[in-house]
Amino acid sequence: MWTALAALGRSASSGGYFRQPFATAERECHAWFAEQAAARGLRLEHDGNGNTVAWWEPEGATGKAVLTGSHLDSVLDGGAYDGPLGVVSALAAVDLLRDRGFTPGKPVGVAVFAEEEGSRFGLACLGSRLAAGTTTPERARELRDPAGVGIEDAMVAAGLEPDLGPSRWLQDVACYLELHVEQGRDLVHRDEAVGLASSIWPHGRYRFDFTGQANHAGTTAMPDRHDPMLTYAMTALAAAKQARLSGNRATFGRIDVGPNATNAVPSRVTAWMDARCASDDALAELVATIEKQATERAGRDGTEVEVRVESVTPEVVFDAELTGRLAHGRPVIPTQAGHDAGVLADAGIPSAMLFVRNPTGISHAPDEHAETADCLAGVEALADALTELTR
Amino acid sequence: MWTALAALGRSASSGGYFRQPFATAERECHAWFAEQAAARGLRLEHDGNGNTVAWWEPEGATGKAVLTGSHLDSVLDGGAYDGPLGVVSALAAVDLLRDRGFTPGKPVGVAVFAEEEGSRFGLACLGSRLAAGTTTPERARELRDPAGVGIEDAMVAAGLEPDLGPSRWLQDVACYLELHVEQGRDLVHRDEAVGLASSIWPHGRYRFDFTGQANHAGTTAMPDRHDPMLTYAMTALAAAKQARLSGNRATFGRIDVGPNATNAVPSRVTAWMDARCASDDALAELVATIEKQATERAGRDGTEVEVRVESVTPEVVFDAELTGRLAHGRPVIPTQAGHDAGVLADAGIPSAMLFVRNPTGISHAPDEHAETADCLAGVEALADALTELTR
Repeated sequence: MWTALAALGRSASSGGYFRQPFATAERECHAWFAEQAAARGLRLEHDGNGNTVAWWEPEGATGKAVLTGSHLDSVLDGGAYDGPLGVVSALAAVDLLRDRGFTPGKPVGVAVFAEEEGSRFGLACLGSRLAAGTTTPERARELRDPAGVGIEDAMVAAGLEPDLGPSRWLQDVACYLELHVEQGRDLVHRDEAVGLASSIWPHGRYRFDFTGQANHAGTTAMPDRHDPMLTYAMTALAAAKQARLSGNRATFGRIDVGPNATNAVPSRVTAWMDARCASDDALAELVATIEKQATERAGRDGTEVEVRVESVTPEVVFDAELTGRLAHGRPVIPTQAGHDAGVLADAGIPSAMLFVRNPTGISHAPDEHAETADCLAGVEALADALTELTR
Repeated sequence: MWTALAALGRSASSGGYFRQPFATAERECHAWFAEQAAARGLRLEHDGNGNTVAWWEPEGATGKAVLTGSHLDSVLDGGAYDGPLGVVSALAAVDLLRDRGFTPGKPVGVAVFAEEEGSRFGLACLGSRLAAGTTTPERARELRDPAGVGIEDAMVAAGLEPDLGPSRWLQDVACYLELHVEQGRDLVHRDEAVGLASSIWPHGRYRFDFTGQANHAGTTAMPDRHDPMLTYAMTALAAAKQARLSGNRATFGRIDVGPNATNAVPSRVTAWMDARCASDDALAELVATIEKQATERAGRDGTEVEVRVESVTPEVVFDAELTGRLAHGRPVIPTQAGHDAGVLADAGIPSAMLFVRNPTGISHAPDEHAETADCLAGVEALADALTELTR
């Protein structure tokens, strides 16, 4: 399965993946998933949000389903494991359970959620948020990709039939268990191949619009400028410093400049900040501090800055009973990364996560990696958990 | 003429112009120029670099020609005057001379040079540099626009026949006189509608490649990052500060980030610096100081920075005898902006420039402006100069 997926959306120059939701490479991944489901006799079900679930419904299976899975989209130039490892491991766990001769007493679903990264429409976990009803169709329709395309038009262009809103099949789900590559080195330090998630840090995305006055880069004396690039630059440095001092995270990784010409002082800089903190209060305080410093600098630069919240996800604590039941002595660790499991937990579906060790901790980059032995240990842990939950 | 040009390549939202060389709007401007030349009985001549000249060759005109004109391309979201004012004023000066019943004793050429701004291929005055032989065809062929298109392919796509290299007709030119909107407020302070140029400051364009390690914006602790955005941000601030302290200019107005995703620490930031100083030595010293500070910060960030010179244009001093002959008491002032007249002067063609007052000094932006009365004073000054030079 890994070999078949490896070629889809991979950049020959960087080795990274470009699997934007509803674009070619991600659609190829979904086609691959449909083939895999068919080969296993799993019943495929789509919703109107771009999410897909493959059902294993053995004779005699009754009651609410146990859902597993993850996502197949990637950030731009992302790694191979973030998302696909959870989907491939879920299918491999089904195979392992069948090899073991185990028949679940409840339906098992392998889910693929759409736009988990938010790399196209700017809102992470968009598919699961719509499915769970925590983001409204109205809000989703307002989103645009960098080319100005909305989610429904993107779905239609991909041959899908958009019908945004809560997914019927999520109501039949008893719990969700997502396996994911770890995105730090906690398991490396603990010398463990597999761990479970305790919680997800609060996480926000903020759009900073810096506006100034475009002008000639040669003839405009420095004191006469209103250069929003300088206000942005100070803000990016201040964000990193404040996050470092408080043990939190703040990142300016995306920027759009107008007119973006070498010989013109820019008229505007739009930049997006990703911020994550150990508590909701700490997140609010961090963002307020950065916004204050940006505004002060704008005053000195003769520019303006406007900060808009694009999304804030409060702290998610995973189901302690479920997690405790599946841990079997494995480490239970917090994460700073958002996941569909966090969205479903937030929506009241008992959820848990399994992490597979990542030797370098690098994620969202071509160097993201997990050793095969650790991945197989993950499949085994997932199969054991599914056994326990569907017995 | 101004009304006809006003609509071409204008953004309805910003009011600025997008006239990239060999793209639709700029081609429409060239078609307009061809119509204007035909309406006046001027003979149109193209070269293989995208430059065009309209010849006024009255009976009895002999000897080397006097060339005037400017360019019709703009920076992205630029003003209406930078370039077109020189072309329109040249045509208006021909009309005025004919109204006066004056017949020049030498041929008069109205030139339109291609890619003066360097906004598409990154090298300013590309058309005049190729025409004058100061940039080789080989060097021009290496250039690429942001979409990876080379100049020859861009010309072919626009229906032109590229044949890069020195223009035959430039050898028949005795001198070049370019009228241009002022790009500062020197004439405002002097309360004069029209002035002449003494010199152009040295000017360089530098590409800074900052490289780091892409990573997850949530799970990667701040001290574990190698974030090239931070190295870039400090460099942009340092460049502005050093330029301000030394009375020079340094601008980071163009940036390209990879992967440019909100939730990923970037792997690379490419940024272009425009720097201009009062002397060649000062320019070299300014750039060296900024590069040193960038390299020191890269060492602290665990990133790397590579600086490449894209172009350096040494100081250009305009022909003092020619300028003196045309000044008639008008102010003679330096400029920080590059011009085709500077390229031709550098190539040994005696050249001079007329500036028309700009009330705000704003240029390379939608607010660029000149009052009609000042523009008409510019046409008169240009007509007088052509009379003097072709008598």
